[in-house]
Amino acid sequence: MINGSKTLTRPIRWAMVGGGEHSQIGYIHRSAALRDRNFELVAAALDIDPTRGRVFGQQLGIDPERCYPDYLSLFELEAQRPDGIEAVSIATPNGTHYAITRAALEAGLHVVCEKPLCFTLEQAEALRSLAHAKGRIVGLTYGYAGHQLIELARTMIAAQELGEIRMVHMQFAHGFHSAPVEARNQATQWRVDPRQAGPSYVLGDVGTHPLYLSKVMLPDLKIKRLMCSRQSFVASRAPLEDNAYTLMEYEGGAMGMVWSSAVNAGSMHGQKIRVIGARASLEWWDERPNQLSVEIQGQPAQILERGMGYLHPDARQDDRIGGGHPEGLFEAWSNLYRRFALAMDAANRGDNEALAALRYPDIDAGVEGVRWVERCVESADNDAAWVAY
Amino acid sequence: MINGSKTLTRPIRWAMVGGGEHSQIGYIHRSAALRDRNFELVAAALDIDPTRGRVFGQQLGIDPERCYPDYLSLFELEAQRPDGIEAVSIATPNGTHYAITRAALEAGLHVVCEKPLCFTLEQAEALRSLAHAKGRIVGLTYGYAGHQLIELARTMIAAQELGEIRMVHMQFAHGFHSAPVEARNQATQWRVDPRQAGPSYVLGDVGTHPLYLSKVMLPDLKIKRLMCSRQSFVASRAPLEDNAYTLMEYEGGAMGMVWSSAVNAGSMHGQKIRVIGARASLEWWDERPNQLSVEIQGQPAQILERGMGYLHPDARQDDRIGGGHPEGLFEAWSNLYRRFALAMDAANRGDNEALAALRYPDIDAGVEGVRWVERCVESADNDAAWVAY
Amino acid sequence: MINGSKTLTRPIRWAMVGGGEHSQIGYIHRSAALRDRNFELVAAALDIDPTRGRVFGQQLGIDPERCYPDYLSLFELEAQRPDGIEAVSIATPNGTHYAITRAALEAGLHVVCEKPLCFTLEQAEALRSLAHAKGRIVGLTYGYAGHQLIELARTMIAAQELGEIRMVHMQFAHGFHSAPVEARNQATQWRVDPRQAGPSYVLGDVGTHPLYLSKVMLPDLKIKRLMCSRQSFVASRAPLEDNAYTLMEYEGGAMGMVWSSAVNAGSMHGQKIRVIGARASLEWWDERPNQLSVEIQGQPAQILERGMGYLHPDARQDDRIGGGHPEGLFEAWSNLYRRFALAMDAANRGDNEALAALRYPDIDAGVEGVRWVERCVESADNDAAWVAY
Amino acid sequence: MINGSKTLTRPIRWAMVGGGEHSQIGYIHRSAALRDRNFELVAAALDIDPTRGRVFGQQLGIDPERCYPDYLSLFELEAQRPDGIEAVSIATPNGTHYAITRAALEAGLHVVCEKPLCFTLEQAEALRSLAHAKGRIVGLTYGYAGHQLIELARTMIAAQELGEIRMVHMQFAHGFHSAPVEARNQATQWRVDPRQAGPSYVLGDVGTHPLYLSKVMLPDLKIKRLMCSRQSFVASRAPLEDNAYTLMEYEGGAMGMVWSSAVNAGSMHGQKIRVIGARASLEWWDERPNQLSVEIQGQPAQILERGMGYLHPDARQDDRIGGGHPEGLFEAWSNLYRRFALAMDAANRGDNEALAALRYPDIDAGVEGVRWVERCVESADNDAAWVAY
Repeated sequence: MINGSKTLTRPIRWAMVGGGEHSQIGYIHRSAALRDRNFELVAAALDIDPTRGRVFGQQLGIDPERCYPDYLSLFELEAQRPDGIEAVSIATPNGTHYAITRAALEAGLHVVCEKPLCFTLEQAEALRSLAHAKGRIVGLTYGYAGHQLIELARTMIAAQELGEIRMVHMQFAHGFHSAPVEARNQATQWRVDPRQAGPSYVLGDVGTHPLYLSKVMLPDLKIKRLMCSRQSFVASRAPLEDNAYTLMEYEGGAMGMVWSSAVNAGSMHGQKIRVIGARASLEWWDERPNQLSVEIQGQPAQILERGMGYLHPDARQDDRIGGGHPEGLFEAWSNLYRRFALAMDAANRGDNEALAALRYPDIDAGVEGVRWVERCVESADNDAAWVAY
Repeated sequence: MINGSKTLTRPIRWAMVGGGEHSQIGYIHRSAALRDRNFELVAAALDIDPTRGRVFGQQLGIDPERCYPDYLSLFELEAQRPDGIEAVSIATPNGTHYAITRAALEAGLHVVCEKPLCFTLEQAEALRSLAHAKGRIVGLTYGYAGHQLIELARTMIAAQELGEIRMVHMQFAHGFHSAPVEARNQATQWRVDPRQAGPSYVLGDVGTHPLYLSKVMLPDLKIKRLMCSRQSFVASRAPLEDNAYTLMEYEGGAMGMVWSSAVNAGSMHGQKIRVIGARASLEWWDERPNQLSVEIQGQPAQILERGMGYLHPDARQDDRIGGGHPEGLFEAWSNLYRRFALAMDAANRGDNEALAALRYPDIDAGVEGVRWVERCVESADNDAAWVAY
Repeated sequence: MINGSKTLTRPIRWAMVGGGEHSQIGYIHRSAALRDRNFELVAAALDIDPTRGRVFGQQLGIDPERCYPDYLSLFELEAQRPDGIEAVSIATPNGTHYAITRAALEAGLHVVCEKPLCFTLEQAEALRSLAHAKGRIVGLTYGYAGHQLIELARTMIAAQELGEIRMVHMQFAHGFHSAPVEARNQATQWRVDPRQAGPSYVLGDVGTHPLYLSKVMLPDLKIKRLMCSRQSFVASRAPLEDNAYTLMEYEGGAMGMVWSSAVNAGSMHGQKIRVIGARASLEWWDERPNQLSVEIQGQPAQILERGMGYLHPDARQDDRIGGGHPEGLFEAWSNLYRRFALAMDAANRGDNEALAALRYPDIDAGVEGVRWVERCVESADNDAAWVAY
Repeated sequence: MINGSKTLTRPIRWAMVGGGEHSQIGYIHRSAALRDRNFELVAAALDIDPTRGRVFGQQLGIDPERCYPDYLSLFELEAQRPDGIEAVSIATPNGTHYAITRAALEAGLHVVCEKPLCFTLEQAEALRSLAHAKGRIVGLTYGYAGHQLIELARTMIAAQELGEIRMVHMQFAHGFHSAPVEARNQATQWRVDPRQAGPSYVLGDVGTHPLYLSKVMLPDLKIKRLMCSRQSFVASRAPLEDNAYTLMEYEGGAMGMVWSSAVNAGSMHGQKIRVIGARASLEWWDERPNQLSVEIQGQPAQILERGMGYLHPDARQDDRIGGGHPEGLFEAWSNLYRRFALAMDAANRGDNEALAALRYPDIDAGVEGVRWVERCVESADNDAAWVAY
């Protein structure tokens, strides 16, 4: 179990390109990288507006001198420092990934890049050659792959628990873009613009996520051929698709299916992967990530829970909290600590009005809990008699 | 939405008492407090073994001089520093909470304490008086209260959406201690020892959690009287109970029910709260924390999802990520970034063996994603013809 | 598996008291009794209005002479016939059960009675003595007990699969009477009138259902003592309760809990029973009657499905259809056959307008299915090429 | 609501071809047809073994003279009777449907036929012409179409509640034939034999079911073209498929997808249909047939329950029981009544041993229920004091 103690001798000196103040994904990158002190955020080019980027960088604790106006100056000037960055994360629109990744590798940096890595296979292979030549790491943020039950699925499949694999069904089919929301929503706008998004919208934006999960679970499965039908149900998105079906034949005869969609009206994320073998199937759904469903033909269906002792060690080594707790408990606690900080600050400032407006489990909650237990025990010890409160 | 930018002008200088290397809860405290730079961990008394505490403190980045052998020296010596601590979190066994909290308040510190605050109502009220006299905050870590849908429930009840409240049913009923596991499990041992756990086991340990949720949701509901029946199904736990039923009459005629249990065999956490009004009911379950079930009599049941635009602003202000994503996605990303760090480190050291053993979305994953999209588009643009891969 | 072949040499000659045209429960009695030709409906006193009762009786195929105005004449005159009734079902308001059951037993009839059998323990024991003296059967319609998974639960508990039983939690808590609907709903009216409903509303009306399920599952468990708190949330129902909590101590130390309610706003039936042992728990919910949840501490939770080969034979002998099918499929087929009959009748009458208005799977549906399969096969045999339809 | 009163002036005189003693489907036909006295079973050719067929026919109450050795003599000899049959149901292997249906129509009978109607489109159209010429009804038993929520879906789609329809996703994908079970299971054997099953296995056997549901829900949607990929994962089944994907383009641009499978290991029936519109989606699953999920983009998801007052009247007219009850309650009651009959019979015969071995809610259950309510009321009226039982 991960407990926050040091993994490396010292944190890696790290920068971000993109991921500015209003970027959801930028916050996720920082939360993840800084979580257990494996990285230290020391420089950035956070925003295409340099001033805005510098102001936000300072908010994040970056030295203002190391808040750069663009990625080129970031790489160039950091390379001149003895304590310059060693790694960079790229959280910019798709159309820029190739150029920035290439520049970073050329500057000798390790790279963490949002997918897609680039737009053409030729570019991708060029980056691979460059990374190999430079001996640098390129990581892609297929974030769902970090869930422990994906590892569990991999170990179960490898142990032949499903029998020979026959089908892999994948979907990432949300409904958030059922209407042409790009008219008023910038985060959607670039996704449906071929210049910024590349040759596809949902195939690349969502479909590659479960595809990568299938790669983790089934590392030896090779696609032999595929066919794809794509639609632009919101017509203005053409030629980019907002819905697509991909059917795949794997080497050896197994079949794969991917449904990629942004117009699955009313659905939340809808990312699921089901692997079907000759003996059993397993299914994982990203909205209930702590449960893996295992269905063995002729036996009762089973629900496997993250963090439990009966799981394979590979599925437990990345746990940060025991089974039964949702992992989102960390967010809930973070919310409480945020309110604790606000309350302490208000108390320090003597701002009783602010203090009164904050809701958090305070000393009264502590008193109340003690009172309730005391009264319960009093009643229980008196044969469950009623006790005034 | 929270994006990690500064909430306070500067982080609060913070220490921990308890929460050492093998403490799950200690890691949760640190993850939450340090998440968005509202606190800075500068001192600690992490372990009853001072050496072990100091070693782990250094792992966490604390100056070894400020890794103290016990809470008394922590409070005393920090008070002498100009940059001494302003707040302390207490993550020690229950029997020590009272003394440490009192000492911290007397030292002028803000306190975040694990529940229960103490063992008797008299002690609790003494601490409350002391906190008020000192003008210091005492926060209790009823962590589930930080989930946004608890706030949503509060706003819905306040807006009379359920009608007059008739019943509040609560349970926190896990099965992890169905057998006498304390024989080999230290974390359970002190919970069933009256000297360390106080007058109750499950009433205090788990029952007070949903009780506090009811307090957040229904701030004006007052318990008039209660009755409680408790059992020690594992007989060696007597007089402490491992199962209890509490029935409560509230002022105004509503009824409350709490089932507290550690012997609900096979159940995961089983924390649920259902509030029943004259018109509608709502229900929240901590294992599916992103969903709130709302059942209006005579209408279809509804599932409300965290992070969605149709929710009350109070239920959205603590979001760190949009609806549809499980909040545990942050943990998944943290796992990936941890592996990225390990890979970068291995690459730096030229350790190709270590590198080969690591599973993470690497440059090949990037190439593969680009290839798949390219092939899909080729097929789609060719009327869904098969395309070799 | 039941296939409708004869269980008895000849059907039992059977009558109904109550269960007239607008009685939902009357239809259920008849559907169940006549289902597999174990009973033959030959006489009745269906309605307090004799004319209405006779008209409806004829609809049901009863000889008009044997449609009686009341139960007394039914029992008296049938006794004089050589082919007189042998058994009677009683589907009248609660307040009449005692007198009718007594009269039926005295007339030498077997009895099937809606619960409650009567209002006082003294009456109940008198009926028991009478039944024993007469050698007649009295059956109560705790209908849920007929679900096969209840039998499965019994066999699992008997086989010690849960370990020693510690708790039995029951609830039947619907929300249909959250408002004072009795003002306009006759079926509710008598339930909240002590003269007709007896000393309780929900305890008897709904609570006894899961209580009986617990009896089937755990035939040896004896209640030692109990306590009960009841409420009339719709005040006009007092002294009858619309909500009640019953806590029970069983011989041997196990605990029982029953929540009976008609004001669980927004809930459907909400009948559930959870049996918790030292090793495992099982749970059944009447709204998903084909699934039994089994949770073994320290193992993945299991979902057992009705009709599957891995179940105990006692849980399979009453199957009418294989696993996977909802049993409600019989109702769906009945609906289709009803429409087939209407269509045939319309065709016979040459009523093309009526025919056109009916929706059922007709010859066009047959043609369409054949076409679709033919086209699919054509495409599949042509390497998944597009085929015009 | 259906209450069993007469739909037609008199029942239709009805026969069966096939559906003998060990036929599950035969029992379903009879249960459905005879349920509400719309049909009367007066003749049959139940079995290819005439003796076995006659014996079983008598069990079902058919006059032995009207138990025929084959369908030809059934149609010929019944035609000579003044009270001869008017309708026939065909529950024989697929390969015989065409000939029997044709003969029945030529004999002037209404027909209810198992799907597929026949094997080729040419045959199907010939049967359609014949039926029209004869003015006779042909009904197909797409049984799931009889579920009320299918009607509800139709009304909602017609009322434009989903917006313009974009996608229809269907699946009927069970796992019961993941292994080559046909080696030992006759009911599977003919399904994978092209001579008896026709040109396909799962496309016709299961795929056409949800296809028909889509037809009911969306009567105006026309398939323009389709493509299909099919597999024989159990190789010995080739050329018949045990898994198939069909992608369909509808007139107007909507897309359809059908997954037909018998090798979805571990799955129960897995029949689902999801209709996705520009504004909302709905989804129905045959294993939870009482619930319809409705997901409106930007609003909380809704669960609509069969039998509730808020539904469209078309979705309520075929109800036999109110909302909240599973329709399988009729089966549960049938099981009880079966045991009541056995108990009455045993009592009549004085067979106390048989009587003691039967489990059913007997007079003791009646006494117990009364006792429990009495004790509960006593406790409740005494401020929830403990009461000995």
